[in-house]
Amino acid sequence: MRIALDAMGGDNAPAEIVAGAVKALEQLEESDQILLIGDEGVVKEHLDKINASQNDRLQIVHAPEAVGMDESPVEALRKKRKSSIAIMAKMAAGEEADVAISAGNTGACVAACQMRMRLLPGIIRPGILVVFPAMAGPIAICDVGANIAPKSSHLHQYALMASIYMREVIGIENPRTGLINIGEEESKGNELAKKVNQLLREDDRVEFIGNVEPREFLKRPCEVIVCDGFAGNIILKFSEGLAEGLFGVILQEIKKLAPELVQKFMPIIQKIYADHDHTEFGGAPLLGVDGTCIICHGSSDARAMKNAILRAKNQVQTGFNDMIVDALQQVPITEAED
Amino acid sequence: MRIALDAMGGDNAPAEIVAGAVKALEQLEESDQILLIGDEGVVKEHLDKINASQNDRLQIVHAPEAVGMDESPVEALRKKRKSSIAIMAKMAAGEEADVAISAGNTGACVAACQMRMRLLPGIIRPGILVVFPAMAGPIAICDVGANIAPKSSHLHQYALMASIYMREVIGIENPRTGLINIGEEESKGNELAKKVNQLLREDDRVEFIGNVEPREFLKRPCEVIVCDGFAGNIILKFSEGLAEGLFGVILQEIKKLAPELVQKFMPIIQKIYADHDHTEFGGAPLLGVDGTCIICHGSSDARAMKNAILRAKNQVQTGFNDMIVDALQQVPITEAED
Repeated sequence: MRIALDAMGGDNAPAEIVAGAVKALEQLEESDQILLIGDEGVVKEHLDKINASQNDRLQIVHAPEAVGMDESPVEALRKKRKSSIAIMAKMAAGEEADVAISAGNTGACVAACQMRMRLLPGIIRPGILVVFPAMAGPIAICDVGANIAPKSSHLHQYALMASIYMREVIGIENPRTGLINIGEEESKGNELAKKVNQLLREDDRVEFIGNVEPREFLKRPCEVIVCDGFAGNIILKFSEGLAEGLFGVILQEIKKLAPELVQKFMPIIQKIYADHDHTEFGGAPLLGVDGTCIICHGSSDARAMKNAILRAKNQVQTGFNDMIVDALQQVPITEAED
Repeated sequence: MRIALDAMGGDNAPAEIVAGAVKALEQLEESDQILLIGDEGVVKEHLDKINASQNDRLQIVHAPEAVGMDESPVEALRKKRKSSIAIMAKMAAGEEADVAISAGNTGACVAACQMRMRLLPGIIRPGILVVFPAMAGPIAICDVGANIAPKSSHLHQYALMASIYMREVIGIENPRTGLINIGEEESKGNELAKKVNQLLREDDRVEFIGNVEPREFLKRPCEVIVCDGFAGNIILKFSEGLAEGLFGVILQEIKKLAPELVQKFMPIIQKIYADHDHTEFGGAPLLGVDGTCIICHGSSDARAMKNAILRAKNQVQTGFNDMIVDALQQVPITEAED
């Protein structure tokens, strides 16, 4: 398998990206290769630093440009045709690579992969799935930002794709699906939520448990949560901010009230972070593209990148995309009027 | 001042509601009265239990029916015309009371108060404001569920009303306003967010700092956050679920890794809960109605109800509603086309 990796994307690029590639190769098969896409000189320098420049399963693909984390995706892709993201997407869309992985500008990565790979037959819009490491086990949330004004048919497709992903890639036998909503009753929510609730109730391929309130879903009444990309993105980012804030205030209070406990408490916080580390699940797949595109958190370190690479290979091997196409061929989900 | 209190609403009604009223009277003025609206026999029994049935500043108003927490608001109000919520709203809309307070069915409370009180001149839709006790200080979020499919002009009005509320009722000198969005740039977000961003940039009455990402807002870059009621409700409920879950997992890890610390850690958790207790800010006002309606959390205890009663009186005394009407008379905000 050939994995195209954006060596220039993310807050810790290229050092952690390159280091993650080296770590991943230790666990991949001999026939697997990683293509490091980025500025040749810079990437080589980082490979030298960790004595990995002689590894013939690592190949540098020169990309003279890079998309910044805060650049406008569409504009950046239009101007920077030789950026690492653009080249990565092009390679993984063709014969040169099987998978595209980036911790860079999410919008640019989604746009480039969607443009180059196109969509799977039957898919209307792609969606980003994140596996949330809740206390009770992993929960997939889709979409978390690829589609901020979706129609009901899009969310219907996300439910189907996310269910297949959790079963085939994460290994959950009968994943149940819930719809994020502001009340449990079918009649609750905005027009979109009401329509999606009805579509999912009528689709036997999705084990639909109904609406789930945001207060309840971390208790894991279901393994898949569907929501519009605006709400999903808010949930994802707010959870990071709130967790950070809570741990911060706990530490502050311990320092004030019982400073002798700080040293004992630190390893507990660290263990909780490790147990509920979203990088454990290896990046967020862009579901629905005709190829494999994995988007990693901007803050990804070498371990996160390694996990993303391993999970991506796993995703390809399961034949995940073919299963989606099969399911949609049997009973198509067509664009809704809403 | 006469305060109409729904004695039957909330998970802990009527015991905690009645007890909260008694506590509030200790801090209110001699001329203030509380009308306990509910089943006469039941309310009297609870007053007897705490030796408060002789207090002539407490008056029971008999309501033979009560709206359940999970009932459909519209249907419940149609069927139960003599419910405590319906009678409360009617009294506070007329001359019989100055304020309506309920910890019961939020939807029913909003609908009843909106129907009875009507809206302030110039207001298009009411919104619920919650004061979020962030680490850095209080942050108002509006709307958190009254209006789940708002237009841009509604959010524009929420920004104005919430700014006045934070300044006049909570006492923050120059409250800044941010718009929850999935990116900081003006061009980010759905159509609604883009339009609201533009409206708020152009309104001198609102100290607008631009879009705020959900990850950042708890650091309090601003004191007012506006968002649509669907996203606001999700943020509010998800924060409760996540905080509960995180404290739960911390305690569980401490029990496993260092059981001797559990006893020392409990008071720290309790202190954090107390410091960041949203009941400190006394319920959520329904902004925009021509009257004063305060919605309390379903789980409210006596202390929360006491705080809500005191804050409600404060809100009336500031002349908050007149300020909104004045501001909108000077520069009206009319219904947008979107």
